[in-house]
Amino acid sequence: MTGGIHHVGIAVDDLDAAIARWAALFGATLEHREHVEDQGVEAASLRVGSSRIELLAPLAEDTPVGRFLAKRGPGVHHVAFETADVGAELARLKADGVELVDETPRPGLFGLQVGFVHPEATGGVLAEFVGNE
Amino acid sequence: MTGGIHHVGIAVDDLDAAIARWAALFGATLEHREHVEDQGVEAASLRVGSSRIELLAPLAEDTPVGRFLAKRGPGVHHVAFETADVGAELARLKADGVELVDETPRPGLFGLQVGFVHPEATGGVLAEFVGNE
Repeated sequence: MTGGIHHVGIAVDDLDAAIARWAALFGATLEHREHVEDQGVEAASLRVGSSRIELLAPLAEDTPVGRFLAKRGPGVHHVAFETADVGAELARLKADGVELVDETPRPGLFGLQVGFVHPEATGGVLAEFVGNE
Repeated sequence: MTGGIHHVGIAVDDLDAAIARWAALFGATLEHREHVEDQGVEAASLRVGSSRIELLAPLAEDTPVGRFLAKRGPGVHHVAFETADVGAELARLKADGVELVDETPRPGLFGLQVGFVHPEATGGVLAEFVGNE
């Protein structure tokens, strides 16, 4: 079962500048910062009120976020939803014939399991499940 | 002071199809549906778990969401944050020289006051404040 929004992921060119900008505009506070090598990003998780924004800067041009920036420029990259069991959600959607990026969970930030649903399936939104399993 | 994410706004071509898709994919339930003439959209507010997604279909091509769809295709259109006082947030940012779409609040969905911050100011994200004042 899908829970609420876990975070909104935003592609940025300059992570330090983006962290400072979100602090000044919306009072965002840095919660966590991490290189996620297998996703090719340096990520910063920010709290804005009770919610979470994830800023993503590419480690190289030839990475998913690097290609996103080259094609579309900085902006919203994905929307992540909480779920108790990422694998169960992905299996449910796969059984329904939904186009997925990940058919099984993989490790994301904070040691959580994540899995992405292809934007073709959702109407242009790269959607992510985030959970403990 | 900025609160958490009030909703993520998503531009869609076909509102009925998008409502059905979000129900099937993420268990989203329709909360409210409304023509917002001065924004040129038919909007549907959906609950996904504890969060809210706002689907926006343009009433004409020559509207902000119509132009967004023509330029970028369907996808995330804006991210909205709760605040107690939209006018105070807009005044604070204006005093800081931040580029705004709205310098004063205007009526949005649910009879709430809203105000938009220009994507040039945020790093490519059209951001909205939503509040009661």
